[in-house]
Amino acid sequence: MSTVTGHNFIGGRRSAAGTITLESLDASTGEALPARFYQATPEEVDNAANAADEAFAEFRQLKPERRAEFLEAIADEIDQLGDDFVALVCRETALPAARIQGERGRTSGQMRLFAKVLRRGDFLGARIDLALPERKPLPRVDLRQYRIGVGPVAVFGASNFPLAFSTAGGDTASALAAGCPVVFKAHSGHMATADQVGCAIIRAAEKTGMPKGVFNMIFGAGVGERLIKHPAIQAVGFTGSLHGGNALSKMAAEREQPIPVFAEMSSINPVIVLPQALAARGTTVAKDLAASVTLGGGQFCTNPGLVIGLRSPGFSGFIEQLRQHMAEQAAHTLLNAGGLRNYAKGVAHLLDHAGITHLAGHAQSGAQAQPQLFKADVSLLLKRDPLLQEEVFGPTTIIIEVEDDAQLKAALLALRGQLTATLIGEADDLKSYQWLVPILEQKVGRILVNGYPTGVEVCDAMVHGGPYPATSDARGTSVGSLAIDRFLRPVCYQNYPDELLPQALQNSNPLNVQRLVNGEWNSASIG
Amino acid sequence: MSTVTGHNFIGGRRSAAGTITLESLDASTGEALPARFYQATPEEVDNAANAADEAFAEFRQLKPERRAEFLEAIADEIDQLGDDFVALVCRETALPAARIQGERGRTSGQMRLFAKVLRRGDFLGARIDLALPERKPLPRVDLRQYRIGVGPVAVFGASNFPLAFSTAGGDTASALAAGCPVVFKAHSGHMATADQVGCAIIRAAEKTGMPKGVFNMIFGAGVGERLIKHPAIQAVGFTGSLHGGNALSKMAAEREQPIPVFAEMSSINPVIVLPQALAARGTTVAKDLAASVTLGGGQFCTNPGLVIGLRSPGFSGFIEQLRQHMAEQAAHTLLNAGGLRNYAKGVAHLLDHAGITHLAGHAQSGAQAQPQLFKADVSLLLKRDPLLQEEVFGPTTIIIEVEDDAQLKAALLALRGQLTATLIGEADDLKSYQWLVPILEQKVGRILVNGYPTGVEVCDAMVHGGPYPATSDARGTSVGSLAIDRFLRPVCYQNYPDELLPQALQNSNPLNVQRLVNGEWNSASIG
Repeated sequence: MSTVTGHNFIGGRRSAAGTITLESLDASTGEALPARFYQATPEEVDNAANAADEAFAEFRQLKPERRAEFLEAIADEIDQLGDDFVALVCRETALPAARIQGERGRTSGQMRLFAKVLRRGDFLGARIDLALPERKPLPRVDLRQYRIGVGPVAVFGASNFPLAFSTAGGDTASALAAGCPVVFKAHSGHMATADQVGCAIIRAAEKTGMPKGVFNMIFGAGVGERLIKHPAIQAVGFTGSLHGGNALSKMAAEREQPIPVFAEMSSINPVIVLPQALAARGTTVAKDLAASVTLGGGQFCTNPGLVIGLRSPGFSGFIEQLRQHMAEQAAHTLLNAGGLRNYAKGVAHLLDHAGITHLAGHAQSGAQAQPQLFKADVSLLLKRDPLLQEEVFGPTTIIIEVEDDAQLKAALLALRGQLTATLIGEADDLKSYQWLVPILEQKVGRILVNGYPTGVEVCDAMVHGGPYPATSDARGTSVGSLAIDRFLRPVCYQNYPDELLPQALQNSNPLNVQRLVNGEWNSASIG
Repeated sequence: MSTVTGHNFIGGRRSAAGTITLESLDASTGEALPARFYQATPEEVDNAANAADEAFAEFRQLKPERRAEFLEAIADEIDQLGDDFVALVCRETALPAARIQGERGRTSGQMRLFAKVLRRGDFLGARIDLALPERKPLPRVDLRQYRIGVGPVAVFGASNFPLAFSTAGGDTASALAAGCPVVFKAHSGHMATADQVGCAIIRAAEKTGMPKGVFNMIFGAGVGERLIKHPAIQAVGFTGSLHGGNALSKMAAEREQPIPVFAEMSSINPVIVLPQALAARGTTVAKDLAASVTLGGGQFCTNPGLVIGLRSPGFSGFIEQLRQHMAEQAAHTLLNAGGLRNYAKGVAHLLDHAGITHLAGHAQSGAQAQPQLFKADVSLLLKRDPLLQEEVFGPTTIIIEVEDDAQLKAALLALRGQLTATLIGEADDLKSYQWLVPILEQKVGRILVNGYPTGVEVCDAMVHGGPYPATSDARGTSVGSLAIDRFLRPVCYQNYPDELLPQALQNSNPLNVQRLVNGEWNSASIG
């Protein structure tokens, strides 16, 4: 492991020009780790953005294969971060070692997935309409289109995935794949981890000869605002709270040149338990659901925060079983003290609400989060009580009982946008409740059947997104290979000499990519 | 031709609940046309948005083939709008009949292009990752993704293309293709035209059995704000001024649920005349350029508003030729009186500017726009004088002379985002100035060689977009088949029974579309 210096990463160098330093805390003990982290000065923030901008011209024009090599080199460096690194991450986050080892593999796997995307070349979106000089009444000129990176991207990582949604996480991987240099704002919850991962990325950049400034990272509180407002920054990736995401979106919209923000923010991930599944395996579902709610201290974007069922003796029995399981769940040390304070506040709000009943869970006190189960009257959902739809980040869930199918429909229509919705149902349930699906499609990014939303596969078909407030832009995903689309824009060449065109658009198709030529997809060469 | 009633189009019916009525004026005489147009009441605006929302559930789930039939029926109806219709459009816009006839064909052709896209099916973006139950350490579940329409779209048409960028224009066509019902705000400059085209769309909707509310249109001043703020509206398409586009973007961002805005706004479309082309054919270029600047009264988004060349005796001669050609250009009746006022104001600002010299053009007075040629000192561009980069909508252009290649580079870097940039060059010019292209790629949506930016082909490879302020989102295009992407978002199905999946994702691939299955594109069936 490299020494944790706590210096900012700017243009391939480390920089500590400021006088304000920050500590990183052991999440379990509250004890400060030895290193101090240098808050980036305004000038350092600018330098980081400018370094990314300087790198952009060269980086975006590298052949996709070269960027693939860079991503694979990052993956290799991350895989080589050893047990001492895992122990460091565990100290900063209170997450168990097995989880961090798994997340390490997920993070390097994510880099390798984008390397595959780069080699596949479909992200280039190559389209060619050949000239039709004889067309009447007017001839058609030769037109060719492909996609290039939008420019330097500012990335704000999440507290809850110190590796997979952080320094070398999905936003960074997809931005780099798109040819966009990154300025990463290190999360205050795991700065030593960020320092080490930053070093790994820089080693990979040096080994593969990437331009300096391809990856930059700044530490500090309040430095994000200056970063977003810097004219070189052309897009933003963010994972965190609704409040934080909204604030970034506002700053981005108020720039002289507004820029897009892809913020993954708030979701309560409804789970709908259908009647026959309840009858066939309600006991198992109650147990599995309690485990899913409390997994990792409930600190997942896709944590199931709302369970909906149809009133029946069977559902009453299910609630009682879930109550017993939730009552037996152990307390969890959360990622940081701020998270615990927010969790305690969220639980207190639910306890105070007249329409919400507390079913299980020890009183919240001490240094750990107590799992909680609540039951809310469906009327709260129907009248769109904001409290019910606010994400309580931690091991808590709320049950809602609906009278009948009509009320189920009304309840789902009243939901805000979500990352996921889950149907627990037998084959016949799914058929008779198929009418739910079009409603859910308009509310969420991912619909699961007979699974739990925690655990987000990194692959081509994943969508980790959804309508607001789940994200700031339902057209994106922050997990899976489609995430690269957020950072690309099309450029068209009209009547351009073949030898001067980008390779993706040259007649001979030297990159051997699929292209839409005169309305047909193929990878043939032209002429 | 149908009778022009001036009633709003809401949910398949006409509605005139309000008391405020508006007149449409003959663009040449200022005389009012016989019909009056009923400004939509706040309730009518809401009704239109709600009608679109009600249609959405059915419309988005129609098979692509059904939506293709609808678009083709619209195309047929538009083609059948006859000489009386053309005469009406000419009255409202002062555009010549041949231009309107051409635009009619372009508008129906655009509908047919999107019908092709629907049949091709690539817009669905189908992606399938099959389950890997044996994978270690964790199995992979079955994951499938495709794209659905975002929801009802509000469209604000342009004054300058009463057909192709208006009621049945590219935004409407791409939104309908994506499965999104439309609420169109009729442009005040051609309300009778809008009324007739609206009737054509409704006839097509009825003939092909589309849900009522698939297309709605409202008349009136100030009704757009309520429309954009209506919770049913999920995206906005706009073509118009920077001021108007910025205002809509702000409203959309301030909604409780922010929505994306695709505004095509302001561009001065630089034309760079390279040395050898100047030597070889400067005389022709001067003549063609003057024609392009004044074509259609200069009322094109892609009108060349800036001409850049390298100081030389040849370029001085070229300026003199261009001056002579511009001095000979006839005055033009613009689209409407407001346009003429804005043009006169823009010309006056240029005349008043100390760093700008007037080279040709009669004093602006009377009812027509006088073509104008100006020359500006390059320092204005380098110090980012805002006046120089503001679009003057009409037959005006500005010449800039740069000292050398270094100053050319600096001038281009100082440009704001543009729809287009044009290089006029011989083969050797293009080779020796290839370094310009990466700069232009970051500034514009389309780079042309040896052509003029006016005339935007509707095809798969076209990009009519570009960095701000050319548009509000550089990742979109408002012309060409890629425009559909603006109104689609991905949804993922996890572990879903095959028979309940959307057809695009079923194992047997009944739509016969290209899909990304386990990382490879093919149209095979599975299993």
